[in-house]
Amino acid sequence: MAILVVGSVAFDSLETPSGKRERVLGGAATHFALAASFFTDVRVVGVVGEDFLPEHEAVLTSKGIDTTGIERAPGLSFHWTGSYVKDLNAADTLATDLNVFAEFAPKIPESYKDSEFLFLANIDPVLQLQVRKQMPNVKMVAGDTMNYWIAAHKENLLPVLKELDVLLINDNEARMLSGGLNGLRAAEKVLTMGPKSLIVKFGEHGSAAFYGERSFADGVKRRPFRAHTVLLDEVVDPTGAGDSFAGGFYGYIASQKELTPEVFRTAMFYGSVMGSFAVEKFGTERLQNTTREEVDERFEQLREISHL
Amino acid sequence: MAILVVGSVAFDSLETPSGKRERVLGGAATHFALAASFFTDVRVVGVVGEDFLPEHEAVLTSKGIDTTGIERAPGLSFHWTGSYVKDLNAADTLATDLNVFAEFAPKIPESYKDSEFLFLANIDPVLQLQVRKQMPNVKMVAGDTMNYWIAAHKENLLPVLKELDVLLINDNEARMLSGGLNGLRAAEKVLTMGPKSLIVKFGEHGSAAFYGERSFADGVKRRPFRAHTVLLDEVVDPTGAGDSFAGGFYGYIASQKELTPEVFRTAMFYGSVMGSFAVEKFGTERLQNTTREEVDERFEQLREISHL
Repeated sequence: MAILVVGSVAFDSLETPSGKRERVLGGAATHFALAASFFTDVRVVGVVGEDFLPEHEAVLTSKGIDTTGIERAPGLSFHWTGSYVKDLNAADTLATDLNVFAEFAPKIPESYKDSEFLFLANIDPVLQLQVRKQMPNVKMVAGDTMNYWIAAHKENLLPVLKELDVLLINDNEARMLSGGLNGLRAAEKVLTMGPKSLIVKFGEHGSAAFYGERSFADGVKRRPFRAHTVLLDEVVDPTGAGDSFAGGFYGYIASQKELTPEVFRTAMFYGSVMGSFAVEKFGTERLQNTTREEVDERFEQLREISHL
Repeated sequence: MAILVVGSVAFDSLETPSGKRERVLGGAATHFALAASFFTDVRVVGVVGEDFLPEHEAVLTSKGIDTTGIERAPGLSFHWTGSYVKDLNAADTLATDLNVFAEFAPKIPESYKDSEFLFLANIDPVLQLQVRKQMPNVKMVAGDTMNYWIAAHKENLLPVLKELDVLLINDNEARMLSGGLNGLRAAEKVLTMGPKSLIVKFGEHGSAAFYGERSFADGVKRRPFRAHTVLLDEVVDPTGAGDSFAGGFYGYIASQKELTPEVFRTAMFYGSVMGSFAVEKFGTERLQNTTREEVDERFEQLREISHL
């Protein structure tokens, strides 16, 4: 079933220990959509500028991703400049040029209205809520956010959290959102804020799912689940790892009949798998050139390295 | 089958976010022996001072641990003072009083000579090698080390590595030992230095096993294996977590007929389990009061949170 994702479609200028790249295609919605496209239909809502060329659109459309909802605006696309030279696990933002994104008001095409899964990628929570309200009948809503919105726009973020079936954040964001707690305690606190389930990502150290009573249809609260990452020879560019995790995770869920605990766990593994591809090359290069066979192979690898 | 462990039996003065404790029983051999005692017979070689009282010895003997090889010397026992107030994942050493440990020359009691498993806990590699030479016929040798020996005594450490079936170190030590490499590359480099297998511990983020061609009898090199830690409400005192991991890991292996890949993986889980108990209270308190039923229960929990 189709996923509607709203978020940034952007250009990234990156420096990592492996090298430098100028203005490669990026953005949360782009990484999410590419990763999810291995599992289900994906429809993107976003805005780009005049620098978004047919070759960029083809990266998405060649994977069957619906770009009807990507609005064209005069000016330049959102452009992020970051460095991972000091620490591969923590991006150092050198510049954020919002450009056309500054005036973004998401509009949902008619043809997207029957989407059953909604993903609110990391954007202004005011916009996340607007999109949610335009899609009242979706079966499931998942979303991401970041430290900036937690620190400076918490009053706008809180109503979004109440709308979410699954919130995906990293461990630092979980700590911020919980008011300084760690681990299990942070997760339990965040669950009281609205999301039915919570995924906390630990970068190279994998991820954990935390459940509430409302996570599954039977109303039974379950123990957390943990997924490793795939061990890689080299991480070339961590940009988009979290969005690709979300795409693999949510794409797999959207491809299944219902959300059982087993589907959730398997989705976590597919999230790890897609995140592992994302970081092997700069930008979207590796996700563009990944095959479904490679996805399945790496899934089996993840099972092998984690199961007794 | 019996494990002979050589290492420190000591007193620790600790400060953590959960509180302060003065001179609680600790030391690598103590934590290792307590954790391993759930699985097999354990014999300790070490040295203590006049402050080591019958009540301290009883902590070990009450678990069936053989203390024949703990030598009494005039003076005080090794005493470590550390703080985890700034960072639960990194001990800040405030004082290291070697005391009787400064002149430690390990002597193996006759009654220990038939031990089939040898564990060289983190001590001067010169002593590790001396002990290894006194036990030439053991079936298996595993060992630990730390940043200090890697940085300042590498020439003494290198011959020890060649003696090891399994080296257990943390990720920072793996980076140092490999000359600054990370992840898989660091592990492959360390494996070329001698150990047949390598376990890298990532604190709260679990551990990874890296295998070489000589890890198992069939000569087949396998993919790494990863084990999570048990998610805890609170980490009270991380001291001894790594030694308790080693005790659970090696104790389980010593209780099995042969070292198969499945035994190795299961041992990693038991290592995580014993490490998780160690950190729940100060010093050895939680390990002293753990039951075998709790160990099995937590093992099942670890399977549940990591298996599809």
